[in-house]
Formats: sequence, structure tokens, C-alpha cells
Amino acid sequence: MIATVSLNPSIDVRYSLPVFQIGQIHRAASIDKTAGGKGLNVSRVLSQLGMKVSCTGFLGGKNGEWIADRLQDSMLENRFIPIKGETRSCLAILTEDGQTEILEQGPYISEDERKLFLEIYDSILEEADYIVASGSLPTGLEQSFYQLLADRAKQKGRYFLLDTSGIGLAQGIQGKPFLIKPNKEEFCKLIGKSHIELDEMMEYAQEICKNGVEYLLLSMGKEGALLVSKSRILKADIPVIKAMNPVGSGDSMLAGFTFAHSKEYSLEEVLKWACACGMSNAASEKTGSINPLEVQQFINLIKVVEITNL
Amino acid sequence: MIATVSLNPSIDVRYSLPVFQIGQIHRAASIDKTAGGKGLNVSRVLSQLGMKVSCTGFLGGKNGEWIADRLQDSMLENRFIPIKGETRSCLAILTEDGQTEILEQGPYISEDERKLFLEIYDSILEEADYIVASGSLPTGLEQSFYQLLADRAKQKGRYFLLDTSGIGLAQGIQGKPFLIKPNKEEFCKLIGKSHIELDEMMEYAQEICKNGVEYLLLSMGKEGALLVSKSRILKADIPVIKAMNPVGSGDSMLAGFTFAHSKEYSLEEVLKWACACGMSNAASEKTGSINPLEVQQFINLIKVVEITNL
Repeated sequence: MIATVSLNPSIDVRYSLPVFQIGQIHRAASIDKTAGGKGLNVSRVLSQLGMKVSCTGFLGGKNGEWIADRLQDSMLENRFIPIKGETRSCLAILTEDGQTEILEQGPYISEDERKLFLEIYDSILEEADYIVASGSLPTGLEQSFYQLLADRAKQKGRYFLLDTSGIGLAQGIQGKPFLIKPNKEEFCKLIGKSHIELDEMMEYAQEICKNGVEYLLLSMGKEGALLVSKSRILKADIPVIKAMNPVGSGDSMLAGFTFAHSKEYSLEEVLKWACACGMSNAASEKTGSINPLEVQQFINLIKVVEITNL
Repeated sequence: MIATVSLNPSIDVRYSLPVFQIGQIHRAASIDKTAGGKGLNVSRVLSQLGMKVSCTGFLGGKNGEWIADRLQDSMLENRFIPIKGETRSCLAILTEDGQTEILEQGPYISEDERKLFLEIYDSILEEADYIVASGSLPTGLEQSFYQLLADRAKQKGRYFLLDTSGIGLAQGIQGKPFLIKPNKEEFCKLIGKSHIELDEMMEYAQEICKNGVEYLLLSMGKEGALLVSKSRILKADIPVIKAMNPVGSGDSMLAGFTFAHSKEYSLEEVLKWACACGMSNAASEKTGSINPLEVQQFINLIKVVEITNL
């Protein structure tokens, strides 16, 4: 079984407007609401790939109930902790000119709620082979919270995959997760550089792997991806596709990696699966959604090369 | 008892941002959620004035449940019809430069839901002396729906007060409501003019009253208000106050009018109560909220004159 951890989930609300102007009143005819946040995107894609997925984290208020109903619709097991605060909404306002976003901060997690979560987490570790933890840390939890989760997973011999950014990632790495999946921007931030070239990126990535992270999956959008371990570097080149909605593609990559790794595919195949799931999400209008048949087609078009000399 | 009708209520969400730029990602630290829509503003103010208020209309989904919880917090009787669609949210993004709004359209009302509402409405008419109907018509209801509600209220000898705009108001007037409460902009739209002077405004208002509307309460912001009937025109001049949040002031005026009229105060006093409630709302940070002590103080500062010669 695979478990996903969404500590700060959200309802993702998308407004499509013909024009959007500051200081004006807009009537929105088209609204789209998704049980969002990175962790739930990962969960849905894993479920679409036929995996049994158990979801945990924190849910509160009517927004939390709305998400719980959507978990049921997607046949995802609900192991979320009910909290006193209200689960956040995150808004995207889409016009022809681009996307404007408003991200709410989310609820405060109390000490009691934190304790209850760790109890559920420990019981999930008894059953799950893979733990995929994604997204930001809500207020109330310590910045080393992902390190704690990684430590506990390792003690039980579970694979712990972490997709977050900023201090949560920097601290989480101390727990030596099985995998981290930064994009280029998050990676630059992690190593404290504003911009770096591919060669340098690979050097830094291997450095991180030498310090205990097993794999680093670096997503680079249209430029494909790198999969780095202590001893190997694989680079995937992906074909050009028409991207309808790139949001959630990184989460879909993580789902693809987890699926293929759990099937014990070769590392080359695992990287292809990750990229193909990311592409299929980008080709879909829905966030955190793939088409398994399309994934198979994309896999045949992706080229993976081993980079031996840095 | 007073009943309020909110056919298309909403959760009013207010984001306060230091800067707001199209195409950018914003993290909102401060969010304020209110059970909103004009009808619920009226209801809360009436309740703050000590009146027993019964609220009806349509509520659906988790947003509807959230509003139902807020009704309970405000000690308002919940006579809403549960519907299949989801109650809307309306967003206001506040920055120092002003306010940007996104108004959702709201749910579709089915024929069965419409029928059920009319049954509840008829039972409410058995008990309520005043019916205050506010806001836009949801899709699925005919544009003459307020006329229907006004007709039924009149048949039972009830006071029907209508605060809406556009076609809903133009058609609603055919039901000869006891009162309509347009602001200047809505009034201009109603009579098909882009701009008119005070004298002309009073002439048109009396014309409307001669056609069956008992009172026309015209709110004019800082310039006070006019209360017009077939035979009389009263004008209220209000003192300058520091407006914190003018949203909901028109709704608070309507509540003040209804309260004072139900107490059988003189028409001059009724107009003062309407204006004082509007002012107290504007002086408060909260939408649809007054301070009854402050209302008393404002009443002493408002001057009402009778305009005899047009």
C-alpha cells in the first residue's frame, strides 16, 4: 500500500475570466473546484494507476468536509485527522494574459492535533511500503516535522518520498528521505544559488545523495528531468507536447516514480514513468489527473541517457 | 416577526493584501469570511436591534452548511430550503489602492426546489408581519419572481420590502411592494437615465409611488437619503463620519427602516433610524453589523426636512 501525507491541503478554486482588472467587479460564470494541494494530486494519479492509496494529514471545517467527500469520489482511503481550524482555499484567476494566484495560509495545528496525527502516522507505517509527503507545513508544526516523519519511516524500513520546498525541504533532508523531487527553482533555493548550469546542478545533486538521500528527481519542465543517485545520473529527454495545464505535473511525476519503483522496474523505466505521468497531467485540463493509455504512449517517446562524465 | 428572503446568498470572503498584481502569486495572511449577501446583512442588523428574524431562501452544499452554522451563531431562525447546487462565494480583494471583486453566479434552482420554497414562504406569511427580500435572483427562477412574492404577501396583508436591482426590481415593482430601496445608481438604471438631479429624482420617485409602491427609500451615501411616498417627501441630511467599510450600509438602512416602522415611529423617525443604521454599519469594520448605542447617537445628529415644493 502507498500512503500520502498532506499536512496543509486546500480546495483549489479556478476562475476563468475574460478580463481581470484590479479595482473592478467581475462576474465569474465558470468556476472549477478541486480537492487540491500537492499530496492529493499525487494520491489521485496513483489511484488512476491502479494503486490502493491511503491519505492522511489534517482536514477541518466545511472545506475539510468537502475534500473528504472528494476523497470518497476518487476511492481514496481517508485517514485524515479532523482539526478545529478550517482547511484553506487557494485561488487561481485565469485570463488569456495569464494566471493570478491567492494562496491562503491555512489553519493552525494544535499540539493535541499534532499528537493525534503522529499516532495515525505510526499505524499507517505498519501497512504502507511507500510514504509520499508533499507540500507546505501548516503553522503550529515545527520546521523539522518532515525530518521526524522521515526518521520514523526509515525505522520501519519504509520508503519516504518528500516533495516540499524552502526550510521544510532543507530540514527534511536531514531525515535522509528515500527521494526528494525539487524543480529547478526549488533546487536553486535549496543550494543557495540564483541560477546554475546543468553540470553544476548534477554535481550538487550527487553531493546531496552522498549525504544520505537515495534519489534526487529534478523536474525541469520541457527540458525533461534528471534522476540522480550516489552512483548514477540519468537524464530524460521528453518530446514536445501541447500543455493544457502544467499545474500538478510535478506531483504526477512523483506518483509515476512511486508506481514504477513499487513495481521494481529498472531505474530507466522508473524515470520514464515519472516523466510520462507529468506529461499526461500537463496534456489534461484537470490538475492531478492522467490518462494511463496516454502514459504508455509517452513512455515510448521518452529517451533516457546515462550521464557518466560530469 | 420579521422574515428575510435571500434567494442567492453567498459566503463573502475578504482578502487583505499589501499588494495585488495580475499574473503574480500572493500569500494571504488575513482572510475574513461572512455569511453574506444582502438578505443576511439585513437579518443580522435586525437581530442586533432585538428583533426575532426568520431567514429563508436557498442553501446548498458545504458553503450552505457553513452559512447555516453562522445563522445559528447569530440566533437567526433557519427556514432555508436545502438545494442540490452549491451556495456561491463572493470575493473581495482589498489593497490600499482599492477593492477588486469576483462574484460567482450561484447555483441553479430546480422546479422542485422552487415549489418547496413557495410552500415554506406561504407558511412564513402566516406568522411574519414584514417580509424583507434582498439581492439578485438565482438562475432557474423567473425574472418576475419577486412580483410573485410581493403579490402573495399583499394577499395576506403583509408588508413586503424589496431591495434588488435590474430586471428583478423592474418586474418586482409590478407586485406593488410596500417599499423599494434603490441607491442612486440603481434608481437611474430603473428609470433608464444615466444621471439626474435631485428634483428630477423626486419627481420620478413620486411617479413610482403613484403606481402602487407605498415608499421609496433612496440611499445617497454621504448625501443622506430620501424617503418618498405618494403624498410626502422627506430628506435626511447626515453628519460626516469616518467610513471604515461602506459595504452593507444599504442593507443596514433597510433593517433600520423595518425596525422603526414596526415600532410605529413617525415617518421622520423611521427615516432617521434607517440612516443611523446605515451610518453605524459604515463606521464598523464588519459588513452587516451595527452598534445599537451608536445608532442612538447618530439619530440625534441627523436632520430630516420635509420637501413640499418640488
